[in-house]
Amino acid sequence: MAFTEEYLQIRKYTEKICEPLQTEDYVVQPVADVSPPKWHLGHTTWFFETFILMPFSLNYQVYNTEYNYVFNSYYETVGNRVIRTDRGNLSRPGVHDIYQYRAYVDEAMVKLLAAPLNSVLEELLRLGFNHEQQHQELLLTDIKYILGNNPLFPVYADKTEVLNEALPQADFISIAAGIYEVGYTGDSFCFDNELSRHQVYLQPFEICSQLVSNGGFMEFIEAGGYSNFNYWHAEGWDWVKNNHITSPMYWHRIEGKWFNYTLKGLQPVNVDDPVSHISYYEAYAFASWKGMRLPTEFEWEIAAKSFNWGERWEWTESAYLPYPGFSKAPGAIGEYNGKFMVNQKVLRGASIATPPNHSRITYRNFFHPHLRWQYTGIRLVK
Amino acid sequence: MAFTEEYLQIRKYTEKICEPLQTEDYVVQPVADVSPPKWHLGHTTWFFETFILMPFSLNYQVYNTEYNYVFNSYYETVGNRVIRTDRGNLSRPGVHDIYQYRAYVDEAMVKLLAAPLNSVLEELLRLGFNHEQQHQELLLTDIKYILGNNPLFPVYADKTEVLNEALPQADFISIAAGIYEVGYTGDSFCFDNELSRHQVYLQPFEICSQLVSNGGFMEFIEAGGYSNFNYWHAEGWDWVKNNHITSPMYWHRIEGKWFNYTLKGLQPVNVDDPVSHISYYEAYAFASWKGMRLPTEFEWEIAAKSFNWGERWEWTESAYLPYPGFSKAPGAIGEYNGKFMVNQKVLRGASIATPPNHSRITYRNFFHPHLRWQYTGIRLVK
Amino acid sequence: MAFTEEYLQIRKYTEKICEPLQTEDYVVQPVADVSPPKWHLGHTTWFFETFILMPFSLNYQVYNTEYNYVFNSYYETVGNRVIRTDRGNLSRPGVHDIYQYRAYVDEAMVKLLAAPLNSVLEELLRLGFNHEQQHQELLLTDIKYILGNNPLFPVYADKTEVLNEALPQADFISIAAGIYEVGYTGDSFCFDNELSRHQVYLQPFEICSQLVSNGGFMEFIEAGGYSNFNYWHAEGWDWVKNNHITSPMYWHRIEGKWFNYTLKGLQPVNVDDPVSHISYYEAYAFASWKGMRLPTEFEWEIAAKSFNWGERWEWTESAYLPYPGFSKAPGAIGEYNGKFMVNQKVLRGASIATPPNHSRITYRNFFHPHLRWQYTGIRLVK
Amino acid sequence: MAFTEEYLQIRKYTEKICEPLQTEDYVVQPVADVSPPKWHLGHTTWFFETFILMPFSLNYQVYNTEYNYVFNSYYETVGNRVIRTDRGNLSRPGVHDIYQYRAYVDEAMVKLLAAPLNSVLEELLRLGFNHEQQHQELLLTDIKYILGNNPLFPVYADKTEVLNEALPQADFISIAAGIYEVGYTGDSFCFDNELSRHQVYLQPFEICSQLVSNGGFMEFIEAGGYSNFNYWHAEGWDWVKNNHITSPMYWHRIEGKWFNYTLKGLQPVNVDDPVSHISYYEAYAFASWKGMRLPTEFEWEIAAKSFNWGERWEWTESAYLPYPGFSKAPGAIGEYNGKFMVNQKVLRGASIATPPNHSRITYRNFFHPHLRWQYTGIRLVK
Repeated sequence: MAFTEEYLQIRKYTEKICEPLQTEDYVVQPVADVSPPKWHLGHTTWFFETFILMPFSLNYQVYNTEYNYVFNSYYETVGNRVIRTDRGNLSRPGVHDIYQYRAYVDEAMVKLLAAPLNSVLEELLRLGFNHEQQHQELLLTDIKYILGNNPLFPVYADKTEVLNEALPQADFISIAAGIYEVGYTGDSFCFDNELSRHQVYLQPFEICSQLVSNGGFMEFIEAGGYSNFNYWHAEGWDWVKNNHITSPMYWHRIEGKWFNYTLKGLQPVNVDDPVSHISYYEAYAFASWKGMRLPTEFEWEIAAKSFNWGERWEWTESAYLPYPGFSKAPGAIGEYNGKFMVNQKVLRGASIATPPNHSRITYRNFFHPHLRWQYTGIRLVK
Repeated sequence: MAFTEEYLQIRKYTEKICEPLQTEDYVVQPVADVSPPKWHLGHTTWFFETFILMPFSLNYQVYNTEYNYVFNSYYETVGNRVIRTDRGNLSRPGVHDIYQYRAYVDEAMVKLLAAPLNSVLEELLRLGFNHEQQHQELLLTDIKYILGNNPLFPVYADKTEVLNEALPQADFISIAAGIYEVGYTGDSFCFDNELSRHQVYLQPFEICSQLVSNGGFMEFIEAGGYSNFNYWHAEGWDWVKNNHITSPMYWHRIEGKWFNYTLKGLQPVNVDDPVSHISYYEAYAFASWKGMRLPTEFEWEIAAKSFNWGERWEWTESAYLPYPGFSKAPGAIGEYNGKFMVNQKVLRGASIATPPNHSRITYRNFFHPHLRWQYTGIRLVK
Repeated sequence: MAFTEEYLQIRKYTEKICEPLQTEDYVVQPVADVSPPKWHLGHTTWFFETFILMPFSLNYQVYNTEYNYVFNSYYETVGNRVIRTDRGNLSRPGVHDIYQYRAYVDEAMVKLLAAPLNSVLEELLRLGFNHEQQHQELLLTDIKYILGNNPLFPVYADKTEVLNEALPQADFISIAAGIYEVGYTGDSFCFDNELSRHQVYLQPFEICSQLVSNGGFMEFIEAGGYSNFNYWHAEGWDWVKNNHITSPMYWHRIEGKWFNYTLKGLQPVNVDDPVSHISYYEAYAFASWKGMRLPTEFEWEIAAKSFNWGERWEWTESAYLPYPGFSKAPGAIGEYNGKFMVNQKVLRGASIATPPNHSRITYRNFFHPHLRWQYTGIRLVK
Repeated sequence: MAFTEEYLQIRKYTEKICEPLQTEDYVVQPVADVSPPKWHLGHTTWFFETFILMPFSLNYQVYNTEYNYVFNSYYETVGNRVIRTDRGNLSRPGVHDIYQYRAYVDEAMVKLLAAPLNSVLEELLRLGFNHEQQHQELLLTDIKYILGNNPLFPVYADKTEVLNEALPQADFISIAAGIYEVGYTGDSFCFDNELSRHQVYLQPFEICSQLVSNGGFMEFIEAGGYSNFNYWHAEGWDWVKNNHITSPMYWHRIEGKWFNYTLKGLQPVNVDDPVSHISYYEAYAFASWKGMRLPTEFEWEIAAKSFNWGERWEWTESAYLPYPGFSKAPGAIGEYNGKFMVNQKVLRGASIATPPNHSRITYRNFFHPHLRWQYTGIRLVK
């Protein structure tokens, strides 16, 4: 696909996600990890403006010099910024202003892309595309959080979160011991954290062909899983106690039945769907209760050719660490991934919030172990 | 004025305050004490619905039963409510929904007011009017906070905050010792905290005919007032240190000059205007530095016949406590004032944010000593 | 009494309070408000060294220059200090070192007191005596807290906290309206906060001749007083909820019966003793439940000639504020009282922890409304 | 060595570490991670009583049933316990009581050990020995923290922390790529986290034969390492900013020179000694500044045969995770290691605080990345 076409397609997709929103929904930030939708709209635009238009587009006029302060996420190199927890305290720039900002930057980008591109610019463009796609995923899950934590439980859209049919029979797939290659290889885009491709030695293991279902997780709840410390890490147990956790996020017990908030509104929990919105702590506790464990990210990467994935982000047992030979780019772009490689767990796969063409078998997502607002799931290994 | 006319006039005034806002400005809550404008719009409506329409209007249909949870401020009697700090996390009900809610309640109220009213209803109506007027004051100061803490410093309106001319010469007015009467007397409305009218004995004192000006406060800053513990209460000093306070709220030092955010946007500080947006701690420290003190609320009430007031709420040295014979109404209405009579200081007078016909010499406002987002000022006594 | 004799007597009394302690008991600080006993021993000594020996005793050698940092409580004038919450983190100076410090200072003081004293020195001496007596009161209640919050409930001593006989019949004493004089008058010592003596106008009131008893307070508990918001200030209710308060401090419900920790160890609650270790919030809620109120500090001062007091510090409805004409001494001594005159409530009377000769009818004690570790009680007014 | 002899030797070593302490030093807990020395004395004793005497010694009388509450560290299986942060709030049981408790348990243990032991008991004994040795290490570093954070900087003992001579020339040792075996193998004791021994594939790497020295770390400081975000993880950078970190723990800048608190008291920093008391964040930042990295725990384990180690615990880049086939024991003993396998980093080697016979090449220590009170150091890999 031509760059211009791809650029416009990705940019439109972001705005399409926001179509069902009212203006007010763009503004709020109910918890630090959830950014206001209007911030995502502005920040992704600022990314193209700052890293592509400003260095590469001759005579480009910055739209508004104050926006660097408002829409910088975490790039220390690029100057001061609104602290993350204050994003929801800013009513301005307003939604309309930000759409105008998008249009302004899009026009300048289209102009730039009409000329021949050198390889440095091409690489940055690919990064900008993938960056915006990562924010599309966050945008949808942030919207779900904003609406799902509102006492009125407003409907986002009639978008399904789930499979239409019951999961097929779960099998365990056996993988033999040996040296395997992991990490990205190929000519398309990958993030720096997927490199270098390297060898690892795996012990033999068996991995389940299916994700754990809501029904399976209900058994854990009914068996007292949330009140038996034996299944939990010490910090997981503290998290359960301090936050009074008794079920996955968005689940509500109403007159003896489980409901969960979905993009369609409050619905009875479907026992056949894969369980979702659980923290790593819960994934680990569930696996312990089953007498099994979670896969490492390398086990997952090797086995994933043999099962279907893409519904839920899957927690792994692996900590988010650099691969051998990892090196970060110089300057602000180098702040993209490397500086987060501590205290987080790797997730593999993709989720229903992942935009088209944004998943691959070597992709490494990462979150702190207590976070639940992504479409996270569980796959067991024994 | 007929009740219907007064009702509509007050209700319209609330909406008029919101006219300059963009939809996004209605939503945010940058600090716990500042409520989103849309919450004020809904809460004042809920007050009439809950305390007047529901008990007195036959066949009245509640607009939306969920709104009791969303718009109850602090009435424990009336059920659960969204916790205060979460008001800014709710994108719904949206601004348009809330204006519809207002129209629905207004229509029902007009219908109710067309019939003859008994004295209980009349009394509640007056309370509802005054309640909405109190929120008008908060609404304007909350809007100022929302816009004034935005890095873009948006203009609210060309509304002046200040006097058009320099303050006249300040004099000290002498009041003799003796027994005086304080508290409300008359046939119009007053809050329960202004009763009963009672006698107090005052020592002789002299009170300044003018408020302290910005220019006067700059002298305190230049004299190192914010860095000399001697002028401060111990808790005031902690507040200064922990919050890095070096000037009144909304003041910014830009290239060696003082600017302040006003409803007209960022402006050079006018040295002749009365100083504003200072905490009780700062008012006390300023007075100490001057070798004077703040008036008690009774000194103020007795002396106020002899000077102009109404530009700024004036901090007093008095703690907010019940008057002799204070009694609160039974039920939810009794929660209006009495339960706040601890840990707060009394302010007297009124401010430029006070709506027309909502000030009187016996009015008692009250805030915690560290708060600054009201138009608070200083009057000295020696 | 000669100054030397009085000095030694007061100093010995402090050490006598510590006699039942083990070395470890001198060290800990379970909450910020409770200081380690060894800190009290050092701080009272530092007070004499800093404010009397250093300025008045020629050639006095400071015992250890580091001690100023360790034993300064809150005197900003005198330099930096260990922050209050760190007092319990210091194992050194040890208990033995501090007793040596006391002996060293005592020796220098006795030498100084042997010579004729001027009036400035006499005044400071009286302040030092009263200062140490105030710390004796804190010392005993801090010790009670340290032992009473230990899971082993160690006995301090066979010291009674209570009356030997049931309280006599409670009567209500009537006081007529009129102008009264309050504040200290006389030739002995008083604190600066008891001055100036001045006139106040009181409304007529009736005050109970007895304190509320444990039995009376149990009725409040049984009537659901801790779970009915109507009796509480809003901030009091938050305090109850956030801290899960369901009874006075030191009370434990064991197999259906109330026990309380006393200086004699864990004992069944004696229903005839005056209730103790309650916050202002609880005192207020109890009075509300009774349909009565607490006295103001001036009502108390005028009425106290007519009843027995001295068992419990009695919460009043009055905020701690300066009297007319209050002025603080120049320098560090001026930091003694004035800078605390905000956000606190006045207590009147004295308690069983008050040392001999340290109570008078004009004495003003003060604490934040949530504090309970003093021997605080309730007297009702109607 | 016979079990009895080994038992007594280990127990005595614990008490020997405490010999230089004053009673007060046994009591305090200046931060949550540092336990009072008397708590270590009691807890290690409780471990033998609970896990060995109670199940295996017929007719054993528990010393004091309250002690289970006081001295349980984190074993949920064994019942409630004093929360960790309250350990320093307990003056009782006193030091003398705890030594008596030790003597009582030691006597019962010696009696038990005189009889023939079965293999289960032998295994638990070995665990108890190693458990006490782990606490010996903590005991010394906790004592250092208690004394080193006291403004008087008391001397612990004339115990050296350092090498007597300058470090020899640092070389880089090359290790070839390939499959290696890691994890414990042998007949002696190891912790469950060192099993199972398994194969890993390593890329080629070069590792330094020496630890980074104080002098080397000073260069990082002088080069502005603490104020350049580029070298830090995002969470490391937050930690530096929020805690105002500008040097290793215990370093003080006095009149232009670096001093550090050591067990001998405050001393000039010796440039030749290995740097110590640095967090993982600092170790990582230092390595980044050098253009190198930290070893993984497996790289360290394979390379450690080729260099000297044992002076400092060495931070690795590895997260603390279970080995393949890791399984925890049933019951309380299973809580020993496994439940901590999240959010921590592995350290390898040993330190000068490690007791004799308590180090081996497969030993895995683990701490949160911000902690610094252990003797932690840096070894570089390129």
